[in-house]
Amino acid sequence: MSDALDRVQAAVAAREAAGLRRVLRPRAASDGVLDLASNDYLGLCHDPRVTAAAADAARRWGGGATGSRLVTGTTELHCDLEDELAAFCRAPAALVFSSGYLANVGVLTALGGPDVAIVSDAGNHASLIDGCRLSGSPTTVVGHRDVAAVDAALAARDTAYALVVTDAVFSVDGDLAPLAELHAVARSHGALLVVDEAHALGVIGPHGRGGVEAVGLADEPDVVRTLVLSKSLGAQGGAVLAVPEVIDLLVNTARPFIFDTGLAPAAAGAARAALGVLAAEPERVAAVRTNAAALAGVLRDLAVETIEPDAAVVPGFLGDPRRAFAAATGCLERGVRVGCFRPPSVPPGRSCLRLTARADLRSADLDRAAGVLAATLADVGVTG
Amino acid sequence: MSDALDRVQAAVAAREAAGLRRVLRPRAASDGVLDLASNDYLGLCHDPRVTAAAADAARRWGGGATGSRLVTGTTELHCDLEDELAAFCRAPAALVFSSGYLANVGVLTALGGPDVAIVSDAGNHASLIDGCRLSGSPTTVVGHRDVAAVDAALAARDTAYALVVTDAVFSVDGDLAPLAELHAVARSHGALLVVDEAHALGVIGPHGRGGVEAVGLADEPDVVRTLVLSKSLGAQGGAVLAVPEVIDLLVNTARPFIFDTGLAPAAAGAARAALGVLAAEPERVAAVRTNAAALAGVLRDLAVETIEPDAAVVPGFLGDPRRAFAAATGCLERGVRVGCFRPPSVPPGRSCLRLTARADLRSADLDRAAGVLAATLADVGVTG
Repeated sequence: MSDALDRVQAAVAAREAAGLRRVLRPRAASDGVLDLASNDYLGLCHDPRVTAAAADAARRWGGGATGSRLVTGTTELHCDLEDELAAFCRAPAALVFSSGYLANVGVLTALGGPDVAIVSDAGNHASLIDGCRLSGSPTTVVGHRDVAAVDAALAARDTAYALVVTDAVFSVDGDLAPLAELHAVARSHGALLVVDEAHALGVIGPHGRGGVEAVGLADEPDVVRTLVLSKSLGAQGGAVLAVPEVIDLLVNTARPFIFDTGLAPAAAGAARAALGVLAAEPERVAAVRTNAAALAGVLRDLAVETIEPDAAVVPGFLGDPRRAFAAATGCLERGVRVGCFRPPSVPPGRSCLRLTARADLRSADLDRAAGVLAATLADVGVTG
Repeated sequence: MSDALDRVQAAVAAREAAGLRRVLRPRAASDGVLDLASNDYLGLCHDPRVTAAAADAARRWGGGATGSRLVTGTTELHCDLEDELAAFCRAPAALVFSSGYLANVGVLTALGGPDVAIVSDAGNHASLIDGCRLSGSPTTVVGHRDVAAVDAALAARDTAYALVVTDAVFSVDGDLAPLAELHAVARSHGALLVVDEAHALGVIGPHGRGGVEAVGLADEPDVVRTLVLSKSLGAQGGAVLAVPEVIDLLVNTARPFIFDTGLAPAAAGAARAALGVLAAEPERVAAVRTNAAALAGVLRDLAVETIEPDAAVVPGFLGDPRRAFAAATGCLERGVRVGCFRPPSVPPGRSCLRLTARADLRSADLDRAAGVLAATLADVGVTG
């Protein structure tokens, strides 16, 4: 009946045959499983102050924003959140999107274009890649953290304008971008530096103000930051931090801002409350990094390739997707949830477990993780 | 310092000079203004059952979903919502996204590709257009509601596979797509029909099950629907309704599904409650359409070009963007909020007021709207 449906069925079968078919595994509200897979880095998603704020915002402002931000979807709550995000991150101004994905696509499509070259790190998040593609910009993908390659690409461009785009903390590998060096190179070419702080907010810098602030670039007008509210702030949504003229351009031309319903009030309320906790309890920032170092130590002790983590993300590279999946499944059966990243989320041959630290992990949690990982990895033939 | 920043400033100045610069106007929680601008078609955004469900979900499941759907972001709450959406819309299966924008981009990028032609209505929503662009599909944009042009484009394609893409209810013009005819043409060419029900759910069909169900196509395996949870359901988020193999493909390959944090629990809870109210109180569906017809009558009485509305959206075409903006501003000053759509949201020369009906508008509200519109349009020189 439908050739296009036949194509879908063939694609699904091919993934199954390649050992790459993924299925959703719903979790219960309380399942006793130790979470080493979420991005709830500061342990704030279930903090009663955060959930109460979400509940209060829903009751006061409604279940949704009711329209796009330029029609009815901008409430005083959204503006308060934007002011507080900008103040915390020491940015000139902020603009909230309904997701981090859309914030990245919005920034790159509004700032890019055929007359604006983009130079993008090979390890950048999918939403940045999709933003590059949609922007119509001639885009050069450069090697991971390769500042000299960025410099060369900017020098070789044949457009008047340019953007340099990078994650602050890379989402799977967990390493930091060389932000100071990238900014110097970008500025020398008159380019803007766009930095995705998704995995850096709440984690990088003594107060968790993110990678840009940590290297002293928060005041620079040629740096544009994107944030998510769904990781360390335990809510949903995204934001852009930039000088007012960039915010103005986004309000007027960023399609994922203009044509999308505003962020739900409950998420805005939750994010505001979480930001307040983060500001009041900066010890959470140090705790998440200490716990990440401990998790990396567990992997090293098991002879699994990992990194010295700069942030909360701790990859354990296993290579083969079936082995990574078996390891993650085995950990879950033993009561520890870890991430499992396979193609297309990672390059072929780089399938990995992805452990994430939280500020509220206790010593007993780390011991439990070590025991479960040791037993599981021995089972699947990685160690032992 | 930054050439790229100079470019931004020039773009902002150019919009200002063209009378197209838009600014955000935050609203208070209770401002006494009559809302004829939101997409809260059934009046459920502030329904105590909906807001209580949002609050309960936040307290039980947390402020956010904590991760992407394939890692930690799928809860039993998400699965319950998916089951209930599919049941209500009489669809084989459902998959929830964090926004309708991302659902549309996800469907088109997963189902499209260089070997899949897309035929897209000229009036389609920005998110469908962005999905076409990102898909890599050779795309033909056909005239608005032009079934013969769709047929011709499908016949002329040089790819094995094809998709036909349309809004069910067009977001600004408010008219219905010829879904039965489009499906017949799509099927005759072995193509899938992709229908965005954003403005149709809760509004079209005797029970508000949307445009596809209303024309008897809910069971057809070659029809894929997208929904939003942020309009008639008063929450946030999007969804795809399709046969299980399409859902499976999306779970495995749709980048805005895989690489985005799952929908916040509060929004999922609100949407579930709203769906329950919609099912229990189908009289709301008839009420919104009756009220839309009344609003169109108000515009016609003022000699403003409008339509016979099929759904909740009632455009009033004024042409010039400055005049449309002055009219919307004047209405707001008199206590009635209406939408104002200017380029790039609409084509040049088609700037309009966009009135939206709600199920809970009372006769006094309609009288108030008529008085305010008459006074304002006379002021700005449209009538009187």
